[in-house]
Amino acid sequence: MTGFDPREPDFANRVRDSFARQPFMATIGAELTDVAPGRCEIRLPYDRTLTQQHGFFHGGVIATIADNAAGYAAFSLMPAESSVLTVEFKLNIVAPGRGEALLARASVLRPGRTLTAAQIHVYAVADGVETLCAAGLETLMCLPGVCLPGRDDGPAGQPAPESAHNLSTKESPP
Amino acid sequence: MTGFDPREPDFANRVRDSFARQPFMATIGAELTDVAPGRCEIRLPYDRTLTQQHGFFHGGVIATIADNAAGYAAFSLMPAESSVLTVEFKLNIVAPGRGEALLARASVLRPGRTLTAAQIHVYAVADGVETLCAAGLETLMCLPGVCLPGRDDGPAGQPAPESAHNLSTKESPP
Amino acid sequence: MTGFDPREPDFANRVRDSFARQPFMATIGAELTDVAPGRCEIRLPYDRTLTQQHGFFHGGVIATIADNAAGYAAFSLMPAESSVLTVEFKLNIVAPGRGEALLARASVLRPGRTLTAAQIHVYAVADGVETLCAAGLETLMCLPGVCLPGRDDGPAGQPAPESAHNLSTKESPP
Amino acid sequence: MTGFDPREPDFANRVRDSFARQPFMATIGAELTDVAPGRCEIRLPYDRTLTQQHGFFHGGVIATIADNAAGYAAFSLMPAESSVLTVEFKLNIVAPGRGEALLARASVLRPGRTLTAAQIHVYAVADGVETLCAAGLETLMCLPGVCLPGRDDGPAGQPAPESAHNLSTKESPP
Repeated sequence: MTGFDPREPDFANRVRDSFARQPFMATIGAELTDVAPGRCEIRLPYDRTLTQQHGFFHGGVIATIADNAAGYAAFSLMPAESSVLTVEFKLNIVAPGRGEALLARASVLRPGRTLTAAQIHVYAVADGVETLCAAGLETLMCLPGVCLPGRDDGPAGQPAPESAHNLSTKESPP
Repeated sequence: MTGFDPREPDFANRVRDSFARQPFMATIGAELTDVAPGRCEIRLPYDRTLTQQHGFFHGGVIATIADNAAGYAAFSLMPAESSVLTVEFKLNIVAPGRGEALLARASVLRPGRTLTAAQIHVYAVADGVETLCAAGLETLMCLPGVCLPGRDDGPAGQPAPESAHNLSTKESPP
Repeated sequence: MTGFDPREPDFANRVRDSFARQPFMATIGAELTDVAPGRCEIRLPYDRTLTQQHGFFHGGVIATIADNAAGYAAFSLMPAESSVLTVEFKLNIVAPGRGEALLARASVLRPGRTLTAAQIHVYAVADGVETLCAAGLETLMCLPGVCLPGRDDGPAGQPAPESAHNLSTKESPP
Repeated sequence: MTGFDPREPDFANRVRDSFARQPFMATIGAELTDVAPGRCEIRLPYDRTLTQQHGFFHGGVIATIADNAAGYAAFSLMPAESSVLTVEFKLNIVAPGRGEALLARASVLRPGRTLTAAQIHVYAVADGVETLCAAGLETLMCLPGVCLPGRDDGPAGQPAPESAHNLSTKESPP
């Protein structure tokens, strides 16, 4: 779970650039607080607009930063010209999201050229004390050389993936 | 998956009231579009503030309405003086969240006095056509007679639950 | 979830052949009772050797036939010269595995060239009455043209996959 | 994830007794190799009867010992007169189950009076070297004071639980 080598030296900037291009991260106020090969941490300060009916962080908010932390932990080990897609994830919420912030920490369990598995722990920070709030497992897919037309996050002129499910190995560039 | 009887006639208003008290639903612009015994539908119109780096609905947004649809499908079958907590959920994202709206439809698989299991299907609506975007399974817990101090969603004077994990059967009122 | 077209007409025999080559299916006494494009049903008669401490079907037994039903539902839509691997699955056990048999029914939610998602429902059959016992979601991977040396389930001379996680799109045949 | 206190000193014998009463563990040849407060390890030597079509441990076998390790990790922290039920679990299979044995190690993430969450790592042991084969998350439920009529694993005269889903807090003894 530790000691992975990134495939290219600029992995951290690549992760930060991608994170900065996700409008939903700005919407909720999430911050990318740490990136290392195979690891990622995201911090989310409390705001009432992020809560459920009891005043705690909404479960969907917990899931959002868990998913993103896993995605970028996986992406940090992928080749320069690639994209990452969430295939699936599962989250156990073991304590309420109560406190001044949430911290999601993800680490790659098994990196692969096509699929990567990552585990996630989300902590609720109250008065500076971290309490485990949720644990998750996620599967990510690497789309080699993929970008979307008109966007700046990959090589130009390639078709957009429909999803992880119809990316064909036969369709990938030789 | 069909034909459940609600335990009390006012279930739909109870669900709508709880939904209206979730600030995060207003933050993302989600609408509760259908409630029936053991079923719930939530609709989320597209907005660029809800997207990831490719311009599609963020996976965390998909998870948010999936989780909420399952929670309220379960809550519709719970007693009047109770609360619902998400224990865990799992989501497979099978197609990108692309289109003018997302629709999350959840239905109870097995209602229980303590635990309820629900399944969820999320559709991406593009030009009026629904495409399956995600499928999920979720476990919900019923907290009998629970409320939070100073809040109006339950009987007064009862302690707040720490979480599903430390609600004791011994602590429940006789 | 219905109406899938198989990629090759002999899909049912291919599924039956693969099932017959799984020693663990004989060990527990499971029977492949139905195969259709994108669907599979497995039946497991009760035997005391399959139980947990309360005399019900063991959760691992429920998981085994759920996993296999999903795998073969997916495999029924894959090309003739391919293998199927389980990437991950999740199972909610909603009632005890009590009765004279278990029935696992899986159907493909979204077939893909690389990844396929399937849903599973497992029923406990007691006195001929089916009761939902478990619900699951599973991700499967298609390994094109893959076989293991010395085995008869694929073209000869190709390397064995390490796992879904290190199958490279670059390694796949052009 | 460490340093839990058991509720009663005889926890290890209670776990071993329950394990010994599961006929399916004898069927597959699994051994309970370690029990500690909140932790459990199960070892499964290779046998051809446990394999899938490629000669590796079947995914259902991996799931079986993962589920059981999590169940007994949770059970080790439960009161003397109680039973444990699997509510749900999820497993990512990240490498083939290849080698002379499998090792499943589970540890409790969050113990609760009603629900407990546990994480599981399963290793394939080949030539004495352990390789991560699967990672899982599981939710367990404690049934206080529950036993089955005519069985010796709890106090006499109490009704059997239908399942985790219809155990009512109101039905529990005062």
